[in-house]
Amino acid sequence: MLIATPQSMHFAEPLALTSGASIRAYDLSFETYGTLNAERSNAVLVCHALNASHHVAGVYEGQAKSEGWWHSMIGPGKPLDTERFFVIGINNLGSCFGSTGPMHTNPDRADGQVYGADFPVVTVEDWVNAQALLLDRLGIQTLAAVMGGSLGGMQALGWTLQYPDRLRHAVVVASAPNLTAENIAFNEVARRAIVTDPDFHGGNFYQHSVVPKRGLRIARMIGHITYLSDDVMNEKFGRQLRSAVAGANEGSYLYSTQEVEFQIESYLRYQGDKFADYFDANTYLLITRALDYFDPAREHGGNLTKALAAAKAKFLLLSFATDWRFAPARSREIVKALLDNQREVSYAEIDAPHGHDAFLLDDARYHGVVRAYFNNVAQEVGV
Amino acid sequence: MLIATPQSMHFAEPLALTSGASIRAYDLSFETYGTLNAERSNAVLVCHALNASHHVAGVYEGQAKSEGWWHSMIGPGKPLDTERFFVIGINNLGSCFGSTGPMHTNPDRADGQVYGADFPVVTVEDWVNAQALLLDRLGIQTLAAVMGGSLGGMQALGWTLQYPDRLRHAVVVASAPNLTAENIAFNEVARRAIVTDPDFHGGNFYQHSVVPKRGLRIARMIGHITYLSDDVMNEKFGRQLRSAVAGANEGSYLYSTQEVEFQIESYLRYQGDKFADYFDANTYLLITRALDYFDPAREHGGNLTKALAAAKAKFLLLSFATDWRFAPARSREIVKALLDNQREVSYAEIDAPHGHDAFLLDDARYHGVVRAYFNNVAQEVGV
Repeated sequence: MLIATPQSMHFAEPLALTSGASIRAYDLSFETYGTLNAERSNAVLVCHALNASHHVAGVYEGQAKSEGWWHSMIGPGKPLDTERFFVIGINNLGSCFGSTGPMHTNPDRADGQVYGADFPVVTVEDWVNAQALLLDRLGIQTLAAVMGGSLGGMQALGWTLQYPDRLRHAVVVASAPNLTAENIAFNEVARRAIVTDPDFHGGNFYQHSVVPKRGLRIARMIGHITYLSDDVMNEKFGRQLRSAVAGANEGSYLYSTQEVEFQIESYLRYQGDKFADYFDANTYLLITRALDYFDPAREHGGNLTKALAAAKAKFLLLSFATDWRFAPARSREIVKALLDNQREVSYAEIDAPHGHDAFLLDDARYHGVVRAYFNNVAQEVGV
Repeated sequence: MLIATPQSMHFAEPLALTSGASIRAYDLSFETYGTLNAERSNAVLVCHALNASHHVAGVYEGQAKSEGWWHSMIGPGKPLDTERFFVIGINNLGSCFGSTGPMHTNPDRADGQVYGADFPVVTVEDWVNAQALLLDRLGIQTLAAVMGGSLGGMQALGWTLQYPDRLRHAVVVASAPNLTAENIAFNEVARRAIVTDPDFHGGNFYQHSVVPKRGLRIARMIGHITYLSDDVMNEKFGRQLRSAVAGANEGSYLYSTQEVEFQIESYLRYQGDKFADYFDANTYLLITRALDYFDPAREHGGNLTKALAAAKAKFLLLSFATDWRFAPARSREIVKALLDNQREVSYAEIDAPHGHDAFLLDDARYHGVVRAYFNNVAQEVGV
């Protein structure tokens, strides 16, 4: 059993942000697994998506059910093998799992209030910069790989452009070179649900001792719909009635607009409630905005090939056939732009039924591809 | 110019509902266009979807911009030609455009309060029954056709099962034999946004002189995302910034989580605001539930072929390639079940880019198919 130990690092130097603002001082929460070799060549940074954290793998001492969010992928003997690699997970700035974020004290205020809505907008580029500073402190100049799924994949891609000489490989899973209008639209509805919740108080709900749970629930329900494929929803829930599952009144409609009638409703409400209990509303706004803003081609007139010319890493890209949030076509755009630049790219489109969520699940072919890729990386870096 | 004149009919006899409840007395708003012929053979009923009404075609006297919701399809010389057919639009019970609904006085209450949340759950079957009663009053025994798109198509299908001898043709556009889990999921998120809006007051917001606009806005924004295709959203909005459109600060991000940054956000907020100004929150719950509940195969163990055995009408089905809400595969399920029963079916899958919304738009091939079909219906009924 891999035991994880959360750590924290303080940074007293201000971090300049893409927006022009800066964060005066900050802490980054992180975890590491495995051992850094003498050559310091076997470090792999794993970047997280919307609602995950630095707790990537293993469990906390005495908490058997506290598995890291990518524990099926990362650990001893797993596709990303912590017996060969030194794996690092870092909680991003603005998140709500330990690193400096909206619920922490704003050093620019004399009254000791938390940032709340005043936490500056952070971008994928800013996160990558902060991650690089943490790696400096850990004495790691060059990463064997940066790996991430979804928004985490955008960070891996960002690494290849911002620090092309500091990583050998980028593993970009279920990601995209930017969001489509539909992706932005779903983010925007979720944000409006949060911002218009009367308990949001313009982002300063902490001082009112309330949480905009209504908005967070709606945001999470929308999210869950986009994480799953239509097929897997039909297979898991279909039109199954809750009454049929409960065994009472089997198969009869309740004829109610507000009661839970279908199992899918029960599932979504449960996911919404759970999320609203732990996730920070300002963090939700910040992270969905980081997703919206990511667009490396933007400074190159929309030309992704030009944008990726800076990358030097070797790439593995993975997509999932039923992912309609970040569809395979979006990964193929990245693959094409890299090939235009004569970069070394491996690409696999996995025929998993689970939609976007597939990147977190244990699919044999998916894990096989990642395992084989990291075997090669291991040979390359001599572990 | 076709001038529309709204009418209303009062029904003093209670209407028994599928749920077991009943509506004690009620009014139905309707409009008719064209002239009923002497044989009373040229009547076509047009059924509406979620947010439409009996105002199907034409304009109101002196209101040039008051076109009916299907005016591109229905009118003099149009695919459904009101110079040949007598077209009837009826506002469904529980809606908010004139027929008895949640904002009307509840006759079961001594205090004169409106129904509000007490308006009974109505189903597609109930609507069809009420429509049949109105046709009785108009002296129309047999319809040349029943036509509808989306939820309206479900009513057309319902007609063929509940009153198989009262219609010759059913024209079912962009519809489905039932909702998928994903369809229900989107409805449920929209309902939760409305119900958890503090201004909803358990459905009795009328007495508080407020409207749950926050919830209605979110509901409408979600709806709009599902009405459009990913492609048409990218084409219309893409990642275009509002600042670029406004001409100020061209192409620069504002770096804000709450300001409108992208054009798609501006569009969705505008649609949400507009909808919240006129649509009734209880109606939204009722109509989305009617969608959820529609499932003719349900009483036949999920076997659609058995369910459609009762139908005698001839059918035209139409679907749109980019409609991911009611995808072509759903229409094909209906086509297959009808063919299993040796019914006469025409089917066209239209390659329009607009998603579910295409059924309301003016596409040449789509309108050509409908026009040709109604030419045949006209010959059949002698007009």
